[in-house]
Order: sequence, then C-alpha cells, then structure tokens
Amino acid sequence: MKRLSPSDAMFLYGESREQMFHVAAMMPFTPPPDAKPDHLRDLMDEIRAGAEVHRPWNMKLKSPDFLFNPMQAWVEDPEIDLEYHLRRSALPSPGDERELGILVSRLHGYHVDFHRPPWEAHLIEGLEGGRFALYVKVHHSLVDGFSAMRILARALSTDPSERDRPLFFSIPPPQRAPRAEQPEEDPAGAQYAAVLAAVREQYSAAKMAGRALKRVLDSSRAGGDHELVTPRQAPKSILNARISQSRRFATQRLELSRLKAVAKAADGTMNDVVLALCAGSLRSYLLELNALPDAPLIAMVPVAVRAKDDIGEGNSVGAILASLATHVEDPGDRIAEIIQSTRHAKQQLQGMSKAAIIQYIALLIAPSMLQMIPQAAGHVRPTFNVVISNVPGPEDSLYFRGARLEALYPMSIPVHGQALNITCNSYAGTMCFGFTGCRDTLPHLQRLAVYCGEALDDLERALR
Amino acid sequence: MKRLSPSDAMFLYGESREQMFHVAAMMPFTPPPDAKPDHLRDLMDEIRAGAEVHRPWNMKLKSPDFLFNPMQAWVEDPEIDLEYHLRRSALPSPGDERELGILVSRLHGYHVDFHRPPWEAHLIEGLEGGRFALYVKVHHSLVDGFSAMRILARALSTDPSERDRPLFFSIPPPQRAPRAEQPEEDPAGAQYAAVLAAVREQYSAAKMAGRALKRVLDSSRAGGDHELVTPRQAPKSILNARISQSRRFATQRLELSRLKAVAKAADGTMNDVVLALCAGSLRSYLLELNALPDAPLIAMVPVAVRAKDDIGEGNSVGAILASLATHVEDPGDRIAEIIQSTRHAKQQLQGMSKAAIIQYIALLIAPSMLQMIPQAAGHVRPTFNVVISNVPGPEDSLYFRGARLEALYPMSIPVHGQALNITCNSYAGTMCFGFTGCRDTLPHLQRLAVYCGEALDDLERALR
Repeated sequence: MKRLSPSDAMFLYGESREQMFHVAAMMPFTPPPDAKPDHLRDLMDEIRAGAEVHRPWNMKLKSPDFLFNPMQAWVEDPEIDLEYHLRRSALPSPGDERELGILVSRLHGYHVDFHRPPWEAHLIEGLEGGRFALYVKVHHSLVDGFSAMRILARALSTDPSERDRPLFFSIPPPQRAPRAEQPEEDPAGAQYAAVLAAVREQYSAAKMAGRALKRVLDSSRAGGDHELVTPRQAPKSILNARISQSRRFATQRLELSRLKAVAKAADGTMNDVVLALCAGSLRSYLLELNALPDAPLIAMVPVAVRAKDDIGEGNSVGAILASLATHVEDPGDRIAEIIQSTRHAKQQLQGMSKAAIIQYIALLIAPSMLQMIPQAAGHVRPTFNVVISNVPGPEDSLYFRGARLEALYPMSIPVHGQALNITCNSYAGTMCFGFTGCRDTLPHLQRLAVYCGEALDDLERALR
Repeated sequence: MKRLSPSDAMFLYGESREQMFHVAAMMPFTPPPDAKPDHLRDLMDEIRAGAEVHRPWNMKLKSPDFLFNPMQAWVEDPEIDLEYHLRRSALPSPGDERELGILVSRLHGYHVDFHRPPWEAHLIEGLEGGRFALYVKVHHSLVDGFSAMRILARALSTDPSERDRPLFFSIPPPQRAPRAEQPEEDPAGAQYAAVLAAVREQYSAAKMAGRALKRVLDSSRAGGDHELVTPRQAPKSILNARISQSRRFATQRLELSRLKAVAKAADGTMNDVVLALCAGSLRSYLLELNALPDAPLIAMVPVAVRAKDDIGEGNSVGAILASLATHVEDPGDRIAEIIQSTRHAKQQLQGMSKAAIIQYIALLIAPSMLQMIPQAAGHVRPTFNVVISNVPGPEDSLYFRGARLEALYPMSIPVHGQALNITCNSYAGTMCFGFTGCRDTLPHLQRLAVYCGEALDDLERALR
C-alpha cells in the first residue's frame, strides 16, 4: 500500500463527468515488411495467455467509491483483467488520419474506471497502408505524462530487429513506486502537471515570491515593463469557457531542423519557436471564428529553471506567463515580441530561490485553479489563456517488434476555464504537437493543427 | 419544454458511474448483393449534409448539471451535433460475433452525455462477409426500450427494394411528445421499465393489494401454495451483487417454431418456454461456477394482464414472480414447475383491480429498489434474482435500404443488486435474446447465451 501524495490526490479532486485528469499518448506505427497479416491478433493472444503486469500498472485505488478520501492509497490489484486494459479497436474505411483522430478523440472523452488500475491501451488496426496505432491512456494520479512517455519509450527498441521486447506494462520499473520517476533533467521545458504538483508540495516560503510579485505588479502599474506579463493581463477568450465531456484531438508534426533554423534566425530558443507556432495558429483560428481578443493571448509555459539557491541539483520546475503577441500581424514582429516576453519572465524567475519560484507560480496559477470549479469557470478573468508544454522526447527512431514508431503525440487535460491544451515533444528529428480540446467549446479544432504548420511557413518567409 | 414525468425522472435519480439507465438495440444487417463498397460512408455523408432530427431525438435535459432537479424538463436542442450522435466504428479482424460482442459491450458501458439529446447510434462495419451492424442507445428517461424498438422498426421497410427511407431520427413521430408512445396491446409480456413506471405513476389504492399480499404471505406461512412465489423466497446468489461500470453482452437467436412446439408439448405459454430456457441456462452457468443456490432462483417477469375492473381498455402492465425451478435437474419437470408457478401468479393478479395490481407489484419490487442504493446492494435479501422480459417484436423481415435486418437484440439495464438482465423479443420467426450483465460480477457471461441454446435442445428431448 502506498498513500497518495497531495499532488497525486489533487488529480482525483477535480475529476467529474466533464473534467477527466487522464493523459495519453497516440502512437502510429509502420509494421515491418515481413509482418504477418495477423500479427496484432497474435499479440492479443500473447496477452491473454497471461502477461506479467508490473508497477505502476497493477496499482488501483483503495477507495474508488470515495475519491476524496484523505487516506486514499494505491494498493496492488491481485486479479488484473488484462483483456479489459488492453483492447483491440479498428478504424472504419478509409482508415485515414481523420478517422484515427475521431477514434482517439472519442476514447479520450471516456473516463477511466477507478475500480481498476486506471489505465487502458488500445491497439488500433485498419490504418491506411496496413499500419496500426497504439493509444495509451493513464490517469494522472497514477503516472504523470512525462513519466508515462519515458516508460513507453523504454518498452520500445532502437533496434528494428529486436522482436521479443514485452509490452510496456510487463517491463519492471527501474525504481519501485508509481510516480517515483521524475525527470532527471529537463532543459527545454516541463509539463503543466509538474508545475501543479510542485505548487502543492511546497506551499510555504512566501517572502521572496511576494516581493517578486510586487515588483511585477508595480512595473505593470508604472507602465514600464510592457513585455513582462502580469497575472492581470490575459484577455477573455473562447478558450476559457466551461468544457463538456467530449474531446477533439488534432496533431501536427514538423521537422526539428526547420524549428532550429527559425530559432537561430530570430535569436530565440526552441521554446520561443514553439510558442510562436502556437501563436500563429491560434491567431488564424480565432480570426476565422471572429473571436480574436484585442489584447494578446497569454500562455502559461512550464519551464525548467536553475534557481538562485540551487547548487548542482539540476533544474527546478517553474512556469512563466508569456505573451503570444496574437495582436501582431507580422510573424517576424510577433516572434520578436514573444522572445522579449519570455526572456524577461525567465530573468525574473532566475533571481529567485527554489521556494520562492514555487510560491510565485502558485500565485500565478491560483485564478486558474479557481476556474476549475464549475461555477467559477467562464466568470473569473483568466490569468492565462492556454497552457503550452514542450518536453524533450526520444532522439532516436524507436521500434516495437520491428514496427517503426512514426510519431509520438501527447494528449493532455482540458479543464473548466482551459478548454485547450497544447503539448508537444520531440521525437527522432521531429516535433510532435498534440492539440487536446473540448469538442463543444472549440469548433473545428483540427484547423489549429493545420494552421500550426502554416505558421512555420510564415515564420520562415518572414525571417528569410 | 416538457416537464419530466415522475417515472421518467426516476431513471435520472439512479444514474451513477456504475448504474446507467440507458437501453439499446444491437442490429446486424446483411447488405444487398448490389451494395456499393462505400455505402456506409455515403450514408455518413448524407447525415453530415444535414439530416432532419425529429422528436424525441432532438430533446435534451434543461438541467444536465443537476439531474435531480425537481423541475427537470426536456427542451429542444437547437444545434444538434449529428456527427456526435451518429458514429462510425469498425471491428478488428476477424470481425466475428465475438468481436462484435466485445465492441457493443464496451459501448454499452459508457454513459450518455446529458448535455445533449441522450442517445447515440453506432454504425459498425467490418463484420465478416461484408456485413454491418447498428448499435442504437438511448437513455430510458427519453424513450423506453419498447417504444425505441417500435421507432426503429418504423424506420425500416418490409420492402427490400425501398432504398430512400430516412434514418430513424429523421422520421416524424406519429404522436407529439417523447414517451407519448405506449404499447397499445402487449399480450405476451412487458418490460421491467414499464413496471417501474407504472408503480411510480399510481402510488395509491392500497386496500386490494394489501389483501392480496396478506393472502400470499398467509398461504406461504401455512405451507400450502408452494408454487406461488412470495417476496421472501428468493435465495442469495451472485446475480444480486453490486455492479461495476463495465458490461458484457451476449446474444442467442432461436426458431420461434421450436419454442411454440415446446409450449404446446408442455401445455404452457411462450412466456413459460422463455422462462424455462433462461432457467436451464442459468442452472448450467451457476453449476459451472459452483454458485447454484439450493433454493430455486426467482424471476421477476413483467406481464400484461387484464384487470378485474378493466373494461375494453386493453391490458395493464403487471408483474409476477416466477420460480425458475433451478433446483430441478430434469428439464421436463423443471418447465412443469415453472408453468405451475406462473399460472398461480397470474390468477392472483387477474382477481385484482388495476390500481391494486400496481400496488401489489410496488410491494413486490420495493426491496429491489432498495438494492439500487449502493450501500444496500448485496446485503438486502433480494425479492427476485433476475428480471426476464419478453416483448413481441416485428413479425416480418425488415430492410434498411435493401440490407436485411438479421436479428434485433435488446440490451437492457443491470443495476446494483441485479447484475443480469435478460430481455428477448421476437423478430421474423425467431426469438432474439439479449443477456446484459456486469462484466465483473458475472464472468464468462457469453456462456449464458450458449447454454440457452442447449436448454432448448434439452427441453425438446425431455418433452419428446
């Protein structure tokens, strides 16, 4: 038995018919040329013959009927119904990306069963060209998205000829407990959930943070540092409404080398380019819906920072609020404003101690936490409009029993007041974007993915 | 706007993650020889081009976030997202009955979205031999199962050459309001839900019923009428446990002529034969699990009766408790006991007034209603072990744009304390059984369907 940490328990408190705190990965594969036609059925037979299930995949809640139990704990499930957890699905014809998107959107809109270990894996066949996909979903209280991605990656091989690696849940963990895995280093970015978790775990040391926030607010009032975004500036937008229980998911994959060239030309970081791509996409999307706010949209961006008092311990999780400069028409001017905004925000963070950083981001996200309460959402002015997370992923091509992983798309958590989440991770020379949103609040969400690709073309043209 | 009747509202009160009060139909079709390969996609394009949606399929709850609102009402949804309601799915290879069963079980285990009209239709392709299936699900508060079946049947044609009939939700209702449809006559049986609804609507006139119950209890105490089942006799069984949120669904289809021959040979009714088939199946199933109670299982059987004071108004809904004689090994002796039990129970009912019948069945099912409360389920001694409903269905073969409806399987509602529901209806010379159960409480539920078929062989042998 293992008691839930406060940060893990937090993901149970918010769970409702509309707000579901599970994350997922969507992974299309190309089978090897020598794959047997029935290779996916054979895989299921292997599972049904009784595969081992290791931690955390065999852990379930002790009190599933009372999620908010302050004594909530993880206990081992002695009888795992693997046929429940690992499922076969298929796409209707023609089995294209659109049909795949429809299916995983649907799967992402169903809640997990808390009477079992809260995860599911769906083996999806019927993709064009004999391809298949894996959709793996896990509740954030059991495994966070970053750790889940690492576990999934470990179940894959860099060697296409390795054909006997077990499925992800049959691989023993390097450490013992669920959530024991934390990113050792994470230079490029961090996940929203890590931010929330950090805030919950260290809710103290208010002094430094108070001072920082005062400085932020003062400079804002004085009209000085316009590019330093304060908690008051986020405009109202359709992104910040109540959500329904249905999801839409859209993906985009871009060459990492193109993003690097843009970063270099604009004298910014990869994270800045990711923000600029999202900014361009959101601007086009909202313009088309006649819903672009006059003031620039504000993104909450989890980042890894080295705190002032942090000696040799690696990076801490922090978060900045960045202007997406969506009021600026020219893509070159827009990325310049974004870079200025993130640079100032990071300088602000770096002058602070670890405890103060936590306190600071706690203040930043407090209004957003309030928005998760159904009655408040859509009424409270948001501190930020959208969360954009960018985490590093596997660098090499990965294979599952000879089938090449084409892309690794993260699916995240929309909540009341934050109807859209954008998460991206790198994989084998590409950047894989996952746009996870509420189906009803955000019509034609897939256009965001299309416009994200166009935003890269626009940036390249502007910076030529 | 239309206020919910108390009986409709009742199906919202019990709704939870585990108890879901939707019913469904599973309908496999054989396409005509001239069907185009893409005929199902064309159908979706037709839908997306904007099909009309008629009542009740365009009605949604006024207060979806407060299901128990005493002022709950149905309102028209001005913007129906038809792509949400009508979905395409596909079966993984080999697309056999097993895979179809897995998919519809899964679909039946997801709750409806109360922020929309609470129904979904899934067009399932990839069945062996180029066949397809339709799974239509509707919350019982909107349409009861019997009415839903009638609406679905009306959307089909007896003429295989009729190719332009609209989908079921595009057909104007013959009467105006949702739930306005009630079976005009229903000589063979009735649905559990109709019983519950009747009880709620007329909760008065206790005199006659009190007297009838007293007679029942007295005769039971005196040890006289053993074949008349009283509310105290149902044994504890695994069928009467708490349920989880997952479902399993199994089907069986038998020739009506064989059932009729058995009824004649045993001098019983069709309903008696249905009960005997279920009894044989349950006996084999529970024996195998080493879980057969010593005392006979008791079925709650909704029936249509002509009350003493009912002049020319058709039949009323009633319910009897019937012994399934599962302690009897010989199939011939077993059906004889069942026939004796139902005959006595019906005689009891027929001597009562309409109001008294309602009162009587209210008393019978009261302990079962108590079991729907999570805390009570599994602890309260059940009045009956299983609900078995048998309703008449379409007599002729039906076609949807040339595709022949092979069978019409009803899917019903397991609740806490009633982990299994058996509903059957006739269709085109066959009897279609749907076994809907809780996945976790009832392992290998599909065996019930297999044993139901074997029970008919056994009965034929015994009565030869």
